Amino acid sequence: MDSFKGDFERIEQVLNRHFSSHDPFINKVIQYILFAEGKRLRPLLTVFSARLCGKSDDAVYNLSVVPEYLHAASLLHDDVVDGGKMRRGRPPAYKIWGNKTAVLVGDFLFAKAIDLASRFGIISIARTIAETVALMSEGEIVQLLQMESQRFDEETYMEIIYKKTASLISTSCRIGALLAGAREDKVKALGEYGLYLGQAFQIIDDILDYTAEPEELGKALGTDLAEGKLTLPVAVAIKKASKNDRERLLKILREGEPSHEEFVWVSDILINTGGTDYARRQARALIRSACKALEVFSESKTRESLRELAWFVLDRRK
Amino acid sequence: MDSFKGDFERIEQVLNRHFSSHDPFINKVIQYILFAEGKRLRPLLTVFSARLCGKSDDAVYNLSVVPEYLHAASLLHDDVVDGGKMRRGRPPAYKIWGNKTAVLVGDFLFAKAIDLASRFGIISIARTIAETVALMSEGEIVQLLQMESQRFDEETYMEIIYKKTASLISTSCRIGALLAGAREDKVKALGEYGLYLGQAFQIIDDILDYTAEPEELGKALGTDLAEGKLTLPVAVAIKKASKNDRERLLKILREGEPSHEEFVWVSDILINTGGTDYARRQARALIRSACKALEVFSESKTRESLRELAWFVLDRRK
Repeated sequence: MDSFKGDFERIEQVLNRHFSSHDPFINKVIQYILFAEGKRLRPLLTVFSARLCGKSDDAVYNLSVVPEYLHAASLLHDDVVDGGKMRRGRPPAYKIWGNKTAVLVGDFLFAKAIDLASRFGIISIARTIAETVALMSEGEIVQLLQMESQRFDEETYMEIIYKKTASLISTSCRIGALLAGAREDKVKALGEYGLYLGQAFQIIDDILDYTAEPEELGKALGTDLAEGKLTLPVAVAIKKASKNDRERLLKILREGEPSHEEFVWVSDILINTGGTDYARRQARALIRSACKALEVFSESKTRESLRELAWFVLDRRK
Repeated sequence: MDSFKGDFERIEQVLNRHFSSHDPFINKVIQYILFAEGKRLRPLLTVFSARLCGKSDDAVYNLSVVPEYLHAASLLHDDVVDGGKMRRGRPPAYKIWGNKTAVLVGDFLFAKAIDLASRFGIISIARTIAETVALMSEGEIVQLLQMESQRFDEETYMEIIYKKTASLISTSCRIGALLAGAREDKVKALGEYGLYLGQAFQIIDDILDYTAEPEELGKALGTDLAEGKLTLPVAVAIKKASKNDRERLLKILREGEPSHEEFVWVSDILINTGGTDYARRQARALIRSACKALEVFSESKTRESLRELAWFVLDRRK
C-alpha cells in the first residue's frame, strides 16, 4: 500500500483540521476514535473515484473525510449499542468516558459530516449522504432485532452488511464521482464497485474474527461469537449442521461469553460445515464483480489502484 | 390555538405517514416519542413561514415534519445523556426500552429527517438542516461540559439555549421561507423571528420548571434543579445572592436530588434575587423583538398568526 502514501498523508491532514479548534475534552475523544490506526479505506475510495473521473484537487480531499467521520460516528454508537469490548486494539470510547460521551460525540461527528457534505453545494452529494446515514441506522436496527429474534439466515446477514457497511463504502465512491461531475453511468459503476467491495470487506472482517492472529486483529478473537453476532459462516453452519450441533451452536450464540473450548468447537463447526470456505468464496466472487464494474473506465493507473485495493481487502490478515 | 386546527391535522397526518411501513417495535418507540402531546410548534412555524412567503401546498406540510423529527431525535438522546426522569408526563423512552434502543431510534429519526430534507432538491434547505444538527449537538456538548465544570453564568446559558433549542426553531422558520423561494431579506427576517422566539421559549420552559402546576407541566417540578441544570434565574441568583446563599445553592445544584425543603428554598432565592423576574423580562423583550422582525412583511392573517404564536409562547402555563 506504499504507493498510496501521499494520499494517506493529505487525508490525515484534513481529518485533523476540522477539530483543532474545539474543546480539549471533545477533541481527545475524537482523536481517540479517529486516529486509532484506521485503514482510511473510505477516504481513499473517494479520492481514487474522483481521480478516476478526472478530479484531484483540494476539494476531493476535503470531501473524502466525510465518510470517515460517519464511520467513526457509527463506531461510537455501535459500541454503545452492541457492548463491544475492544476496538482497534484498545477499549472502545464508551468504556473509558461512558455512554453519554460516546453518544454525544457520535452525534457531533455525524452532524459535522453531514454539515461538511452539504457545503459543496451539490444536492446529489447531500442526498446520497443523507440516504446513507438513514440506511446505516436502519442496519443497526435490523441487527438489534435480529439478535433479539435469534434469526441466523444468510438473507438477514446480507441485509445487515449492505445497510451497515457496504452502503457507506459504496457512497464513498459515488460522492467522489459526483464531485467530479461524472456521467451517470460512471457514478453508477463506482457505486457498484463500492457495494461489492463493501460486502466483501465485511465478510472478510467476520471471518477474521474466528481465524486471525489476535495481535494482528487488534481485538480478542471470538468477539462476534461472544456478542452472538450473525456472520456468514454462522448462517451456513446453522443451516448445514446436524440437529444437535445446530442446537449447541444456537445456545452458545444466545448465551454469550463462550469458554475457550466452546470457541474452538464453534470454529471447527464453521470449517466442517463449509461455512468459512463458502464465505471466502462469496467474498472472492464479490471482489471479482467489483473489479468488473470498473470496466466502463478505460485502463489507467488509478483504475489499477482501485483493483489493487479490492484484492488487498480480500487478502488482508487483519 | 383553535384557529390552527386544520394545520395541526395535516401535520399529524404527515408525521404518521413516514413510519407506517417499519418494524412494529421501532414504530412503537417512534409513536411513543412522537405522539406524546407535542405542541407541534416547529411544524407550525414552517407552515406559517412558508405561507407568509406565498406557499402553502403539500410540500410545505411534508417539509414541516423535518424539524419535529429532529426535535424528537434530540429528546431521545438528551434523555439518555441527562438521565431525565419524566418527559411529557411519562417516563422517557430510555427508561422503558433501555439506552440502546433510545440511541438507535434517535439515530434513525435524525437520519430520516436529514434524508427527507435533502429530497426537496434545494441545497439551501439541506445546508440549513445540516448546520442546525451540528449546532444542536454542540449545544449538548457545551451543556455537558458546563455541568462538569459547574459554570453557572448567563453567557453560557444563552450559548446553550441558542444551540440546543433556538437554532432549530429558527431553522423551522427559515426552511419554510426557503421552500417558498422567498427573497434573502425575508428568509433572514423569519430566521430572526424564530431565533428570538426560540430563546424566549426555552427561558419560559426553564421558569415553569420552578413555578408551574405539576399536573399541567407533565413532569415533576424541580427536574432541572435535580439535574443541576443551568437556567437563567439560577445564573442571576448565583450572581446576586449573598456568599452563604450562593454556596448553598451551588451545593444543591452539584449534589442533585434536592429535598422538598431545598426545592422551596431555591425557588425563594430565585424570586428574592430577582432571577425569575429578570428571566421573564428577558423573555418578554425577546418576544417583542420576534414580532418586530416580522415587520418586513405587510399586514396579513398569517403574520398575525405568527405574532399570536409568539405571545402564546410567552404566556403558556405548561
